[in-house]
Amino acid sequence: MRSEGEIHLDNVATLGQWAQQLALYFDPQDAFNGTLLEKIKEIVESNEIRRLPKIPKGTRDFGKDQMAIREHAFSIITSVFKMHGAVALDTPVFELRETLMGKYGEDSKLIYDLADQGGELCSLRYDLTVPFARYVAMNNISSLKRYQIAKVYRRDNPSKGRYREFYQCDLDIAGQYEVMEPDFEVLKVLTELLDKLNIGDYEIKLNHRKLLDGMLGICGVSSEKFRTVCSSIDKLDKQPFEQVKTELVEEKGLAVETVDRIGMFVKKRGPPLEVLSELKKEDSPFLGHADSALALNELEILFKALGKSKSLEKIVFDLSLARGLDYYTGVIFEAVFKGSTQVGSIAAGGRYDNLVGMFSGKQVPAVGVSLGIERVFTIMEQLEKERNEVIHATETQVLVAILSKDLLLAAELVSQLWNANIKAEFALNKRVRNHIDRAIESGITWVVFVGESEINSGIVKLKNIKSHQEEEIPRERFVEQVQKRLSDV
Amino acid sequence: MRSEGEIHLDNVATLGQWAQQLALYFDPQDAFNGTLLEKIKEIVESNEIRRLPKIPKGTRDFGKDQMAIREHAFSIITSVFKMHGAVALDTPVFELRETLMGKYGEDSKLIYDLADQGGELCSLRYDLTVPFARYVAMNNISSLKRYQIAKVYRRDNPSKGRYREFYQCDLDIAGQYEVMEPDFEVLKVLTELLDKLNIGDYEIKLNHRKLLDGMLGICGVSSEKFRTVCSSIDKLDKQPFEQVKTELVEEKGLAVETVDRIGMFVKKRGPPLEVLSELKKEDSPFLGHADSALALNELEILFKALGKSKSLEKIVFDLSLARGLDYYTGVIFEAVFKGSTQVGSIAAGGRYDNLVGMFSGKQVPAVGVSLGIERVFTIMEQLEKERNEVIHATETQVLVAILSKDLLLAAELVSQLWNANIKAEFALNKRVRNHIDRAIESGITWVVFVGESEINSGIVKLKNIKSHQEEEIPRERFVEQVQKRLSDV
Repeated sequence: MRSEGEIHLDNVATLGQWAQQLALYFDPQDAFNGTLLEKIKEIVESNEIRRLPKIPKGTRDFGKDQMAIREHAFSIITSVFKMHGAVALDTPVFELRETLMGKYGEDSKLIYDLADQGGELCSLRYDLTVPFARYVAMNNISSLKRYQIAKVYRRDNPSKGRYREFYQCDLDIAGQYEVMEPDFEVLKVLTELLDKLNIGDYEIKLNHRKLLDGMLGICGVSSEKFRTVCSSIDKLDKQPFEQVKTELVEEKGLAVETVDRIGMFVKKRGPPLEVLSELKKEDSPFLGHADSALALNELEILFKALGKSKSLEKIVFDLSLARGLDYYTGVIFEAVFKGSTQVGSIAAGGRYDNLVGMFSGKQVPAVGVSLGIERVFTIMEQLEKERNEVIHATETQVLVAILSKDLLLAAELVSQLWNANIKAEFALNKRVRNHIDRAIESGITWVVFVGESEINSGIVKLKNIKSHQEEEIPRERFVEQVQKRLSDV
Repeated sequence: MRSEGEIHLDNVATLGQWAQQLALYFDPQDAFNGTLLEKIKEIVESNEIRRLPKIPKGTRDFGKDQMAIREHAFSIITSVFKMHGAVALDTPVFELRETLMGKYGEDSKLIYDLADQGGELCSLRYDLTVPFARYVAMNNISSLKRYQIAKVYRRDNPSKGRYREFYQCDLDIAGQYEVMEPDFEVLKVLTELLDKLNIGDYEIKLNHRKLLDGMLGICGVSSEKFRTVCSSIDKLDKQPFEQVKTELVEEKGLAVETVDRIGMFVKKRGPPLEVLSELKKEDSPFLGHADSALALNELEILFKALGKSKSLEKIVFDLSLARGLDYYTGVIFEAVFKGSTQVGSIAAGGRYDNLVGMFSGKQVPAVGVSLGIERVFTIMEQLEKERNEVIHATETQVLVAILSKDLLLAAELVSQLWNANIKAEFALNKRVRNHIDRAIESGITWVVFVGESEINSGIVKLKNIKSHQEEEIPRERFVEQVQKRLSDV
């Protein structure tokens, strides 16, 4: 698509003229020793580059090839959501600022605000969960299983594979259910999504906010410090324990023995039922703590349901998983790739029973998962390259190749195909080769040639680009003949 | 979905308690004569409403039923675009502010700016045409036929059917072609879109910017006033000529006889070839004017091509059509509904040969059409109501109805269906009636009942909700039996 050379062609021509004029002032020997010419070319090119428009930092366009991959991924994701009876929802890209306030903890500083141009103060959505909760509250809905695939906005530092505008694919289930009923389904959906996207091995780290709170209580952390300690623990997937320990002792004022006790717990990770049975041993401190005992019972039901569903092997019960967001109240989880490409977290979610109530005063418990699809696109693009696949961005079946500049003839013939719902393009060009090249490039199988001799004998020439077969067909029957060949496949 | 009564249930209960307490202070005769009770109820309700979250003015959520209509419309539109070999493009929701500046004339005041939070100054896109031109220029593309379906943003006064966030469906063709080649195709696409959406009769008003300029020159308007006079003429579809005349004379300083001459021309409208032949008569002033003579030649080719394509009957050549945007340079057009619902303009477009060059300095001529789909949604919703159609938002095929609270049993059975790619939901409820009601409401045909007796005899009960037929099936073979019945349809 992008042809680097093309933009400078005009300038090179201009350069020739300049050179002649310059020769009046300089000794040609000097002027044309290459250096001066190079210099001028450099200046012209840098001006040209400066003049090209830019796209905002951290955003990107999706061209035709990327769109083909994106649409493929979305169709898989949508089919999984629909297999579970979820309904679609779309919300505005911006919300009232008050809707977003107080939901994201320290990350609130990453929210994009709209300028105050009179009227309401608004901000771009930061995720799809808060708009979902706002929608449920505003419409007084008591139960809803919805999916939403849409862009969210974060004023983060852009880096490789990390954008300021990016897609999230969310499934959330709000309403009163039996214990772990929707939690089970959301995790099942997540495994189905990652399996069907077929992008490599993964694991889903899982924990429970109430178990985490219980753990901190048992270790001697006072409850007002739970949240800030959690945000330190959350760094354990990127930092060694010693570094987190320093932060907890020096910055957050915890006693060394408290942190060491935490260190013992957060090392626990493994197959869910094994870790669970260890935590439920007779002498386990968790059993004496109401919140964490409840959490362990919930997790037992969840793990058993996932076992019955043959989806437990991807789950890792990991006591170091904390998740940054304020609004989680129960099960929390995060999916990470295990392949060679280190892309980190690819999906996350959990239970948030108080978020809807923050809007309406009426609590509607909810649990959801959010798939961060950008890294999936990256991996899929990579896989496609490795497989050396050619994916055509168009589905055109027939090219009407007019061997003249006769637009009226083209209009008449190609419209007959369009009116018969045949995917067709047309081109006006005297050279047969140009038409064939275009058909090959676009992956079009059938070309209808019409030149002067065809017009005079009332026929068209129909060529199959793949088999190289060519036949003459009466013009008044060419649409049915094309249709016949297309349906023969 | 929205149940108006529900939100007040709690309050009504509370009211009963309040009433008892109030009775201590008031004579029950007064307190319960209805008026006081009504009053209290009113206050409670208005508090409740105040507490509910809001959505920004001029925006809206699309719930499941609207999403079903929207997806239906988009699939029609996308199929038309793909039939013409167009490729998809997606661009960020915001652009650098400099990209949007100087493109929209007076309408620039309607652009949403992002707040200055450090870094680049950005604004929400106002249409899809300018981002397309920016994309073409930035990537040095010489030819592209692309479609984009996305939301755009305008700080306009919201009114019935007019939003601040709304969808546009655009097709644009950029590149060097034979005269009127892409213009013909864009108009053909527009008629196909409106025909296939099947929402009622319409007409496409069409004019040419160069003809308009010629007309103004012939009438004696000086060229620096062309643009401002055009924006007055553009109001003729909403205002009588006398009102526009007053504006042109008093505000824009035109001579009365100049305006009267304009008035003669802008009344001309009708079948394209008839109006064209009138304008091309021997004594026509347009023939002596280079720009308008060129415009008339282009229009003749265009009308003949559309005639060959059987799409000319919807076109009305209308000399009063001016279009507000600055960037048009050739053919301009606007589609309006003619049905009983007065929704006004539904699509518009035209040729803009200088827009890409405004970004890169390298001109790439282009022509495009933009369909404003919101009014189409409104009409489709209306039609659906009139037809009394029930469209189910989900496609669920099977409901696994567990007649107990046994999540593990549900997980096992429903996962077998999901793993076989069958669209299924599950529910835990002891009452058979609840399951049947849910299946009917969601349009689910098959229900798999599993109660205690079924568990004990190793079977499940499979019920067809439509035929009321019921049969018992061995549990270990229930998936294949369900599959068989689904494929029998």
